[in-house]
Formats: sequence, structure tokens, C-alpha cells
Amino acid sequence: MSNVEDTRICVVMVGLPARGKSLIAQKVVRYLSWLSISAKAFNVGTYRRHDTPQPTADFFDTKNPEGERLRHAAAEAAVADMLKWFDNSKGVVAILDATNSVKSRRRWVNERCAANNIQTLYVESKCDDEDLIMSNILEVKTTSPDYKGQDPEVAAQDFRNRIRNYEKVYQTIDEDEKDLTYVKLINVGSQVIINQIKDYLQSRVVYYLMNLHIRPRSIWLSRHGESEFNLSGRIGGDADISPRGELYARKLPELVAESVGDDRHLTIWTSTLKRTIQTARFLAASPKGYTKLEWKALDELDSGVCDGLTYQEIEDRYPEDFRARDDDKYNYRYRGGESYRDVVIRLEPIIMELERSENIIIVTHQAVLRCIYAYYMNVPQEKSPWMEVPLHTLIKLTPKAYSTQEERFKGNIPAVSTWRGKGSSARHQ
Amino acid sequence: MSNVEDTRICVVMVGLPARGKSLIAQKVVRYLSWLSISAKAFNVGTYRRHDTPQPTADFFDTKNPEGERLRHAAAEAAVADMLKWFDNSKGVVAILDATNSVKSRRRWVNERCAANNIQTLYVESKCDDEDLIMSNILEVKTTSPDYKGQDPEVAAQDFRNRIRNYEKVYQTIDEDEKDLTYVKLINVGSQVIINQIKDYLQSRVVYYLMNLHIRPRSIWLSRHGESEFNLSGRIGGDADISPRGELYARKLPELVAESVGDDRHLTIWTSTLKRTIQTARFLAASPKGYTKLEWKALDELDSGVCDGLTYQEIEDRYPEDFRARDDDKYNYRYRGGESYRDVVIRLEPIIMELERSENIIIVTHQAVLRCIYAYYMNVPQEKSPWMEVPLHTLIKLTPKAYSTQEERFKGNIPAVSTWRGKGSSARHQ
Repeated sequence: MSNVEDTRICVVMVGLPARGKSLIAQKVVRYLSWLSISAKAFNVGTYRRHDTPQPTADFFDTKNPEGERLRHAAAEAAVADMLKWFDNSKGVVAILDATNSVKSRRRWVNERCAANNIQTLYVESKCDDEDLIMSNILEVKTTSPDYKGQDPEVAAQDFRNRIRNYEKVYQTIDEDEKDLTYVKLINVGSQVIINQIKDYLQSRVVYYLMNLHIRPRSIWLSRHGESEFNLSGRIGGDADISPRGELYARKLPELVAESVGDDRHLTIWTSTLKRTIQTARFLAASPKGYTKLEWKALDELDSGVCDGLTYQEIEDRYPEDFRARDDDKYNYRYRGGESYRDVVIRLEPIIMELERSENIIIVTHQAVLRCIYAYYMNVPQEKSPWMEVPLHTLIKLTPKAYSTQEERFKGNIPAVSTWRGKGSSARHQ
Repeated sequence: MSNVEDTRICVVMVGLPARGKSLIAQKVVRYLSWLSISAKAFNVGTYRRHDTPQPTADFFDTKNPEGERLRHAAAEAAVADMLKWFDNSKGVVAILDATNSVKSRRRWVNERCAANNIQTLYVESKCDDEDLIMSNILEVKTTSPDYKGQDPEVAAQDFRNRIRNYEKVYQTIDEDEKDLTYVKLINVGSQVIINQIKDYLQSRVVYYLMNLHIRPRSIWLSRHGESEFNLSGRIGGDADISPRGELYARKLPELVAESVGDDRHLTIWTSTLKRTIQTARFLAASPKGYTKLEWKALDELDSGVCDGLTYQEIEDRYPEDFRARDDDKYNYRYRGGESYRDVVIRLEPIIMELERSENIIIVTHQAVLRCIYAYYMNVPQEKSPWMEVPLHTLIKLTPKAYSTQEERFKGNIPAVSTWRGKGSSARHQ
């Protein structure tokens, strides 16, 4: 719940090429979408490629009038589409992903937005860390459609020349623009300058940006070991793990060691419920000296009056609720309990803390794990509550620039399946 | 739950006199204490007054060697006490409340802290808004012990001279100090510069500081009108309001109008439970056009397996739990439910949003209201769960510089009392 109903924000990216602007834009879109805030990125490069699919560096020279004209036309087209999206799709946050490297261009965006009752939030990514820039150049030359099919060395050289053309005219956001709402991210969060933030949603986006880092790391996700409630097909509760769950708990340190592959320090997060704490206890006691934390926010989705019942009992006692949940599982709130939407909102501080952190292993519950997984893997709301997340399986997620890499490590310890298909109340297998 | 266990932070205030440093220090202490993070402010002025109770402005002239010596001794004494507090009281966040106006002094604090394994977070309050400075001067000359019993005009003039003495040598935090973790708050949050934030707790403090404002406003708190569950002495649930609760709901717009006293725009927040939504519905329908929001985070403390029971039934069925709750009501977590501590953690985003906002009226539940009230009125944890918050009463809180002013407006509509004293299971009256 937040008061975004009348707010419309255009996040205007600012920065030289290879400063991670598109990466930031995509992360913000994913984060807001996960929070059910309608968000979309408009990449001016994509519009420019329509007429100029593979320009060379001189296209970006401001002394090239044809290049200038085509680049401005691309910006016009992106902004026009963005305005349409705000009106037709009830958009809330658009990201204008382009260099927007001169003051006049930024003023122009500001005027177009103001005329349409849209706030602007400028996000400048500045970077003088050569390693960071080089790794971005490497990323671009191998993935950008601008250089598809070209020799990587030639592409890298041309891209450096393109950056040089931008550098000639680049204007950082300064005192002249102090009436604008802006954030300057310097070397990916090592310094952040925040100017004139006025609104709740702006402050959320800024806080998210402040917490981002790009150090390599992974996140491990595991459900608790099979519980006594899983065995009897009951939901919720605070049961102990079963003997097979205990086997998984004993196996977990080994699975983790296999998937970590080096001497990284891990932090273990569990919920406050017995089955996750029991599952993590051998890992927590390992000689590696991992830190352990219990979070109430990681507790299972609260099933309210249905807590402790089987799906069959729920269908018998609350047939309408049972059907309503199948119709819209993401939004269905158990009587006296929670919906998936509610769980996402209470997980928001967890995601923020995950963004700040390095290597974390989370031992939690089916619905909570689905929500966290959906954030990293960009799973839409209509699908996330139905995902199969088997017991006794360790999932390793490694965030990369434009996607998250996933590996699964099976414990090879039998367990019931707690997955229920839509329209079924089938007892667990 | 947060991973603060090994973290010790000294928040070092930086700024000329009359820049709101003590105000910020006190707010941070109150916020962290409310979150159960041990925090304390060390005001160097208090230590200086021990030897020099009422100095004149020339005491603060750096050309006055005796003044310099005494001021440095006061800083030494404050830092020594702070170090003792970290060790003896397991302190987590200390605030060193002083001008710390030159680089050498800031380096000195940094070295003292580093030697004791304490992180430093410098918080500089800069202000060139003359109105803001004047209102701070007014505050100081009327409340500071330095000027007790003196003519206010003479005091104000002396205080201005004192500021001038500081201005002569003041060094803002700049490039030379880029290895330090710091936040610069310019004109109370209109611009914020954040440098080298490394840690979760630092980022929480910084986010809190970013959200503060000093525009005048009030917050109104009300419980829902008497509910059918209140009448039967049951806790939790999602009952309708009673006929007397309905009378209160109809009266609420009038009580609000009386207490607002002008044409301020209010935003109404309720929980997602029927009794708060029903109570706020006439207010929401008022011709003033107030905005209304429902927050799951404002739902009543979840009483788990005790939901829907009377206190007598709880005592009969769960006698040990009943006693455990009386022994430590703040930390007692209902089986399958929540403790007051849990409620505070889920209310943290609400408090953050309240800090950002202007005039808000919150219609919520007894335990939730106690937690919000405890934040504003600095009520300790052992007391807050026992506070009496009667039904059918509107509470108006107006934050002032160093305290929060409270007024209560009674609806004069009878209701049961839902207050239960320690050790009693007495039925509601």
C-alpha cells in the first residue's frame, strides 16, 4: 500500500555511454514491477536503431548534422511513446534510458513532462573507475545490437570513439539545475548526491538506487526440510521437520560447500519458525563460522483461519474461498491472513537488504521463496504463486548485468510434493 | 531483526550553532530506541557547562586560549563517556552532538573511534535559509541553559556573536575528507550528499535523515469505534463496529474539524480490517475531499491461536502463555502470531512515511496505536504495551522542536473499556 495513485514519474537517466544506465533502468523496472507499480523503460537507442541500425562513432559527433537530427528524432519518438504509455496503460514510472548528456536536452525532457503532469527524477551515473568502465565496454561490445556480427576489437575501438564524442559535449548536472529533482550516483553508490526529493515514490526509488552494488555475489535459496505438516498435507503451523527433513538439514552444509566453490563468507537467514531454524542448524554450526539471522518477515504466508488445515479441508469448509484463491492466487487474502501481494510488501525490506548484501543463503518457506525468486527472475504475478519449488533442493542465483543466472542442487533425499495445481485439491504425493 | 550485532557507530554531528544538530541527534536517538537499537546522544555543550555554565561569545573565539582549552576538555570528556557507554552498556549508536566544525577535530574523533573499533558517520547540517536559522536562534535563546535568566534580546545578540566566532574558522566537509562516511544535509533535506555508506545500519540512519522535514504539521490518532468483538470482550478478529461505534464514526468528522481548526488537507490511513474502514467512512466521504489509504501494516497485532478468544478463555486454555505475556508484554509473541516488537518492525515503513508526510489521521487498533504513540512520545518498551488508549477519543500529536505536543478530543460516546491491567483477566466493563 502506498500513495502512488496520482503520481507519474519519468526517471531520466543521464550519463556517458558505458556507465551502467541501462542496467540501472532495468533493475528499477524489475523492482517496481515486483511491487505492483507499473513501470517501463524507454531506450532511445532502440528507437535510433530503427533508422540507423549500426552507426559508427562519427554518427555521435555533434558536428554531424544528420546524426544530430536522427538522434533527436529518436528521443522525440521515445518520449512520444512514453507519454502514450502513461495515458493508455496507467503508467506510473517510466525510465527514459538515454545519455541525456547536455543541459538543453534535460530541460527539453523536463518541459515535455511538466506539460503532461509528469514529475521528473534525473538519475546521473558518473564513473571515473576505469575498471568499471572497461567491464561495461566489454559488456556492450559483446551484447549491443549496434555491433552485432562485428569484430570485437573493432567494436571496442569504435565504442571508445563514440564515448569520446559524447565526452566532448557532456555536461554534468550542476548548480544551474538545482531546481530539478535529481540523484547523482558516483562510482556506483560510493557517493550519492540527492537534490529536491519531494515525493514518497521518488524517495523509494532513490533509496533503492543508493543500495545497489555491483560486487560479484550469489544468493542461495532453500525451503526448510520436509516438515511433519508437509507429511500430513497441512498448511501453515509451526511443525518440526520430519526424519527426511532432518536428513536434508544434515546434507545442507555439503550442498552449500559444493555450490559455493570457494571460501566466501555466507550469512544465513531463516524465518522465526522451527522448520527453517532446524533446517539451517547444521549449516550454522559449520566450522566456516557463518553468521545467522532470524527474520519474522521470512515467515510463511499467513493462512489465517485455514492455518493447520489440509487443502481438502479448506475446500470442504470454505469452498468459495478455495475457488476465489484459484481464480486470483496472487491477490487472494486468506481470512485473517495474507495474500501473496501482502507477502511481497513485507518482503520489501528483505529485498533492499539483499541488494546491499553480498553472499546470503535464505532458508524459508514455499510462498516466501516464490516471491523472492520472482523478484530475481522477473516472474509475473499471475505465474509466481503457481511455480514449483521442490523441497530438498538448493537454488543458487547469481545476478549478472542483464539477467540472473540460476543453478539447482538437489539433495537427493525424497520428500512429499507440496505443489498443488490450479483447480485441484489432490492430497500431497 | 537486523544484523547490527557487531556494529558500533558514532554519529558525529557537524555544523554551526543553530543548524538543528541537537534536534537531529534527539530524533535519531528516539527512532533507534523505538527500534530497540541502543542509542544515546552525548552533548559536548553539557560537558562544557560543567566548568563554564554561562559563557559569553568571546569564550568561543579561537583566539581565546583558555576557551579553546576548556572546549577541548569538554569534547575529551564527552568522548571518554561515550567510549565507556559503548563498552559497559553494549551501546550501538552514539551521537556526538557538537559543532565539530574543523577538519582536525573531525580527524581526532575518527582516530579515537577507529582505535576502539567504532565506525564514524559524520552528519553535517548546512543551512543558508535565514528564516530557518532565525527560528533556531529563537529556540536556543529561550531554551538553552547557557542563557537561562538572561534578557532574551541580549541572549540573541550574544548567540549571534557566538555563531560569528564559529563562522570564522568553520570548515565544511569536502574532498579532503572523501575517505570518511558522511551525509551532508543542506537546508533540512532539500539537498543531501551521501558519501561511502558501507553498512546496513548506516544506511537506515541516512534514509531516516533524508526523510525528515520541519514543515509544521500534526498527526491524529484514533482507534476504530467500538466493535462487536469489543462488546463481547474478544480480541482480534474482523468484526463490524457496534451501534455505539457507528455513532463515533458519524461523530468523527466533527471531532476532526474541531481539532484541525483550519483548511489543511488531511490524508486518512486505516488498516485493512472492517472496523477501521467503517469508522473512517464518514470522514472519507466528507466534502473536504480527504485522500484515503488502507495499510495492511496498520492491522491489529496478530494474536495467532488466541484470535477471537476472551482474556478469560486465553487464561483458561493457555495459562502459561497468559502469564508469560504479563511478565514481558513487549516481547511476548502469541503462538502463531505477533509480539509488540514484531508490530514495531512492521510499522517502521509507516513511521518513515509519517516523517515524510504532513497532516495524517490514522484510524487503527489499540496495540498499533500504542506503538505509533510510543514513537512520538518516547514511551519506553516496558510501558508502551500497558498504556491506556480509550475508544472514541481522537488524539492530536504536534511535533515540536524538542518534544511532541498532545491534545485529546473525546467523542463523548460511551464504549466498553478494553484496557486490561497486569495480572488481571477481568472482563471488559
